[in-house]
Amino acid sequence: LQSKLPRVGTTIFSTMSQLAQQHGAINLSQGFPDFNCPPALMDLVNEAMHAGHNQYAPSPGLPVLRQKISEKTQLLYGYLPHPDTEVTVTSGATEALFAAIAAVVHPGDEVMVLEPCYDSYVPAIELSGGVPVFVPLRFPDFSVDWQQVEDRLTQKTRLLIINSPHNPSGAVWQPTDLEALARLTQKFPFLILSDEVYEHMVFDGKPHLSLLTVPALAQRAFVVSSFGKTYHTTGWKVGYCIAPPALTAEFRKVHQYLTFSTATPFQHALASFLDNQEHYLTLPAFYQQKRDLFTQLLAPSKFELLPCPGTYFQLARYSKISSTPDVEFSKWLTKEAGVAVIPVSVFNHDGLDHGVIRFCFAKKEETLRAAAERLCLL
Amino acid sequence: LQSKLPRVGTTIFSTMSQLAQQHGAINLSQGFPDFNCPPALMDLVNEAMHAGHNQYAPSPGLPVLRQKISEKTQLLYGYLPHPDTEVTVTSGATEALFAAIAAVVHPGDEVMVLEPCYDSYVPAIELSGGVPVFVPLRFPDFSVDWQQVEDRLTQKTRLLIINSPHNPSGAVWQPTDLEALARLTQKFPFLILSDEVYEHMVFDGKPHLSLLTVPALAQRAFVVSSFGKTYHTTGWKVGYCIAPPALTAEFRKVHQYLTFSTATPFQHALASFLDNQEHYLTLPAFYQQKRDLFTQLLAPSKFELLPCPGTYFQLARYSKISSTPDVEFSKWLTKEAGVAVIPVSVFNHDGLDHGVIRFCFAKKEETLRAAAERLCLL
Ligand SMILES: CSCCC(=O)C(=O)O
Ligand SMILES: CSCCC(=O)C(=O)O
Repeated sequence: LQSKLPRVGTTIFSTMSQLAQQHGAINLSQGFPDFNCPPALMDLVNEAMHAGHNQYAPSPGLPVLRQKISEKTQLLYGYLPHPDTEVTVTSGATEALFAAIAAVVHPGDEVMVLEPCYDSYVPAIELSGGVPVFVPLRFPDFSVDWQQVEDRLTQKTRLLIINSPHNPSGAVWQPTDLEALARLTQKFPFLILSDEVYEHMVFDGKPHLSLLTVPALAQRAFVVSSFGKTYHTTGWKVGYCIAPPALTAEFRKVHQYLTFSTATPFQHALASFLDNQEHYLTLPAFYQQKRDLFTQLLAPSKFELLPCPGTYFQLARYSKISSTPDVEFSKWLTKEAGVAVIPVSVFNHDGLDHGVIRFCFAKKEETLRAAAERLCLL
Repeated sequence: LQSKLPRVGTTIFSTMSQLAQQHGAINLSQGFPDFNCPPALMDLVNEAMHAGHNQYAPSPGLPVLRQKISEKTQLLYGYLPHPDTEVTVTSGATEALFAAIAAVVHPGDEVMVLEPCYDSYVPAIELSGGVPVFVPLRFPDFSVDWQQVEDRLTQKTRLLIINSPHNPSGAVWQPTDLEALARLTQKFPFLILSDEVYEHMVFDGKPHLSLLTVPALAQRAFVVSSFGKTYHTTGWKVGYCIAPPALTAEFRKVHQYLTFSTATPFQHALASFLDNQEHYLTLPAFYQQKRDLFTQLLAPSKFELLPCPGTYFQLARYSKISSTPDVEFSKWLTKEAGVAVIPVSVFNHDGLDHGVIRFCFAKKEETLRAAAERLCLL
């Protein structure tokens, strides 16, 4: 049996979460909250089940949920996607990313990814026979080197995958990034896949610069988001994709054979809960407070924290503690210091290692305090 | 934009369910129950949510659910898959089918499908660059012509997709089918994908002949099943795949980038509910009673029913009512007679039409009576 993904092992998220469990470590590795979702949201799921909403949803998603997504999108980004032809609900953002790639990448097509990047992009590209073209983000601010992007774009670049707020770094795009991207779209015919699952985690009073705020870009883009990140329900696996009708049509062809549809009771509950604007409008402040607490708690430690303008991830250098590679250091930290983290090098195809690890701070205050206590002993 | 799936439109299930809704027709098209799942199962979901089980499950599935699946598999088929290395929980059987195909089909590989067949197989094959090889089932009993299968198998056949109980026909395999298949595995090196989502709908006192009952076959097979079909929760999208460790390893590589994991609260609830053997042990009788009722109700009609040894689908000829193609007849039936059905020709790549439609009888008695009343007027 010849593997279709010979370079792929178990994802780092599974590996580190498992290691955390084995060693009873505080798990700041895989990105998920250790607190529960809003009780009202669970009640809505329970109501939906008892109302009999337990059979297949329409493949593109419940009409009422697509409608609410459209309205929210207009409210936030001034762009109103048509719920019937431009919004598709998926089984998590991961499915949306996979479906978008599978829908448009033909064998031999080039797909540009900016590294470090989320670990599902490249396997999805490879399963479609695409050729990943890697462009590194600048270190240590993880900004995009647009000159290098332009130099590596070709007429055969089918897709450019972007991600702001950026996992694993927490970097967020500036208005100049959208401008630079818009200029390039005038020279090259690529499509865009914009992973915006951390859209509600942009800090310090800045707005999230969705691709959807630039109509010329929205016209050639799949924009992916996640209810799991926004509603503290990563385990419900509900995400969505916004794309113009021609792209949505191809996206849905793939989606209908990938999963067909997404859990109906959750879709009903989320559709109702989306009316609660307060939840997502206060999310930046909610997570900023956690970021600030964690930063403050780690101030006495030997870790050097990088800026964290977005996401629920905090990067840190550990050179004052150890000079081992980041994968080794992360495992050591899990086993010996009792705090599980993610090494950033695994998000680079060549394992490029800047000696940086990623903490997830989507945790209860007591969890962050307990972790910091351990980390400050090093 | 060149389509990756140029021959694919919206699935027939979405099309007919939508048409049913538009015309207020009784929907016997898409396969799903119109009654609710067991209340105890919903309560378990609610408990799981309130216990905080709302974050990512492990990518292969909750250990406790995989354990219960293993135990049930041994109980029913005498085969004990190892929960750690041979069982993977997926976001519906559809995801499992897609992942199995994507995991082993390389560009240019031949994949044999027996037609008519479920409509996700071929697009999944095509997205992997595989070449579908179509072998028709015999009409009207939908039995496998093993001589023809043997004639069309080659050393390049990577995968054979089988499905018993069979959608759309309701046909079930005989012991001689498993024997014939076992013989062929000695001559050709193909793998097997066995779609057994209707495993608990085999009637007239017959057992379901799972591929897992033949260890030599299980050794080279992905066996896919569905909690949606068994627990009246098609909208929860929880299925699973059993395969030997080497196949499971490749399967999980794809699964982790397709959806990563499956809804956690449902997995907890199903794990507990699997202890209730009565539910699935009485399911054949439950659906046989519906089949028998529907058969009896349609006896005075002009429809000629084909035998239905399994699934919750009933095929019928309509030549005494109309001589139009089955797609046209199905739409007419939906709009004019108020009963939505599925035309069987859409499950053949070349649209081969025997003038047969499919009714789903996974419906309340009153629904079946109301539909039959309309159908008997024709
Ligand atoms: C799907 S598990 C990974 C969760 C996540 O997005 C992350 O930790 O980066
Ligand atoms: C995923 S929708 C189709 C349901 C089904 O299996 C069928 O109707 O055949």
